[in-house]
Amino acid sequence: MVDDGGLDVVAPIGGAVRDLLRAAPGASVDLGAIDPRSTPGLPDEQLTGAERKGWARRQVELVGRDLARQQEMLFAGAKVDPDAGRRVLLVLQAMDCGGKDGTIKRVVGAMNPLGVHIRAFGPPTAEELRHHFLWRIRRALPPPGQLGVFNRSHYEDVLVPRVQERAPEHVWRPRYAEIDDFERELTAAGVVVVKVFLHISKVEQARRLLARLDDPTRHWKYHPSDVDARARWDDYQAAYADLLGRCGTDVAPWHVVPADRKWYRDWAVAHLLRETFDTLDLGYPPADFDIGRERERLLGTAGPLKVNRS
Amino acid sequence: MVDDGGLDVVAPIGGAVRDLLRAAPGASVDLGAIDPRSTPGLPDEQLTGAERKGWARRQVELVGRDLARQQEMLFAGAKVDPDAGRRVLLVLQAMDCGGKDGTIKRVVGAMNPLGVHIRAFGPPTAEELRHHFLWRIRRALPPPGQLGVFNRSHYEDVLVPRVQERAPEHVWRPRYAEIDDFERELTAAGVVVVKVFLHISKVEQARRLLARLDDPTRHWKYHPSDVDARARWDDYQAAYADLLGRCGTDVAPWHVVPADRKWYRDWAVAHLLRETFDTLDLGYPPADFDIGRERERLLGTAGPLKVNRS
Repeated sequence: MVDDGGLDVVAPIGGAVRDLLRAAPGASVDLGAIDPRSTPGLPDEQLTGAERKGWARRQVELVGRDLARQQEMLFAGAKVDPDAGRRVLLVLQAMDCGGKDGTIKRVVGAMNPLGVHIRAFGPPTAEELRHHFLWRIRRALPPPGQLGVFNRSHYEDVLVPRVQERAPEHVWRPRYAEIDDFERELTAAGVVVVKVFLHISKVEQARRLLARLDDPTRHWKYHPSDVDARARWDDYQAAYADLLGRCGTDVAPWHVVPADRKWYRDWAVAHLLRETFDTLDLGYPPADFDIGRERERLLGTAGPLKVNRS
Repeated sequence: MVDDGGLDVVAPIGGAVRDLLRAAPGASVDLGAIDPRSTPGLPDEQLTGAERKGWARRQVELVGRDLARQQEMLFAGAKVDPDAGRRVLLVLQAMDCGGKDGTIKRVVGAMNPLGVHIRAFGPPTAEELRHHFLWRIRRALPPPGQLGVFNRSHYEDVLVPRVQERAPEHVWRPRYAEIDDFERELTAAGVVVVKVFLHISKVEQARRLLARLDDPTRHWKYHPSDVDARARWDDYQAAYADLLGRCGTDVAPWHVVPADRKWYRDWAVAHLLRETFDTLDLGYPPADFDIGRERERLLGTAGPLKVNRS
């Protein structure tokens, strides 16, 4: 039994989540070898099955408080020193129903909305198609001090054209290298890129699509094309396997988060973000003014400060 | 005693908050007659002073759940019918330390970040100054289905130039009428504009500035120019009184929220938003596909659906 009644964040078992879930760079990642229902880093041996879900959800709440404070420190630092350009960019990719929206709601939702910069990428518009595929991505980057979140991203451009055969290989193939260059450029500019693939099973996707069909408050989330894409499941998995291996660089590695269990997914992404913020060695910036003098100036304009707080 | 142990939102006493707090249109609003520590709509007679704060905070949590659902319905409706263009725009104005950031964190933070579009307006940049003052505002409007939040707004352009004498009257005076036209245009395009002035007292501002000076984790929120602006307190109040009266139209009225008590401020803004969503008669859109047929198609691709949920 883990003591989960306290207010402490329990460290992941076996080391940092970002190490446990990092995809090995190479030609291709073997997604078949990663169980979407597995829970790497969770103290499974100390919890019974029934306890794990509630325990993980409470941990997400606790980690969320850390994230809110860390994000505020990033924001504060950028206000004082915007030229440093420091920011974090969370890139979320998944099959339909993989849980991108839920992750944003539950994990990113713990932070102050003022410091969060979310952008979603749908099929390119006519205008976007007239530009280089990274054009719309560059315009959506977060400003310094913010956590950017990409709900889908430039990786769609090595997925859809390939699987749906909308572009020949000589169009999409060079994009792997272009993406590498782009992410190195971002890193050099102070952007820490955290790439997450939410890995669900085909049977879990079917369950989630069925749940949408069965719930009138969620029909708007369903589209018949979801079943068409599902028919190409294996092709999409192969395309993901390639991009996860091919674009898993040292500066911007990919993480494969087993995502059939929503509570594990949230726990893992919350820890990934927390560990990323930790690497930034954040703190509140010191005053760039004379505190004593400001207090005097202020009191000079204040009148009597009655204590009648409520 | 109000029964606050249940899970119900208690309606504001005396009618809708948006009626209680609406600023009367006219040449000028008498801000001196509105006590920043007052609590219009709160069931004061049924609560002791000590109970009110906790009660109001729990109510904000409950109203927040409604807001999250209402915002999701707005979002869902726009996904199915983007041409309707329906969206809500919350315009927040206040003196320094008036609580704009806190309101966003506590009230807007209750909603799914995917459906919220926050933009902050600082002093205009060199590029912005080369354009009409509404240029940067138009670029920051929320897309259909979203709740837009303006942290400061086009109203800065009838405040700062006037009080700091950065522009002659013939420059800023015509802006009242331009703003009226602009907001009528927005309304016609499906944007419901909710304008809120967070009304704090001069003594409360001093307390909050002092608190920032006394807390090293909040020095980044303090700037010496805050005290300079404070020295012009009466001029700013007069400029606010004029814009609240002059730009309080029937389509986009101003609301003056007494804001010395943060818990009342949050309670009032949460209710204002809820009442605004209520006027939109929101609901989840019906399916625009054949549900039975989609279930069949889906099951055709699913394989056996084992029940092994966690």
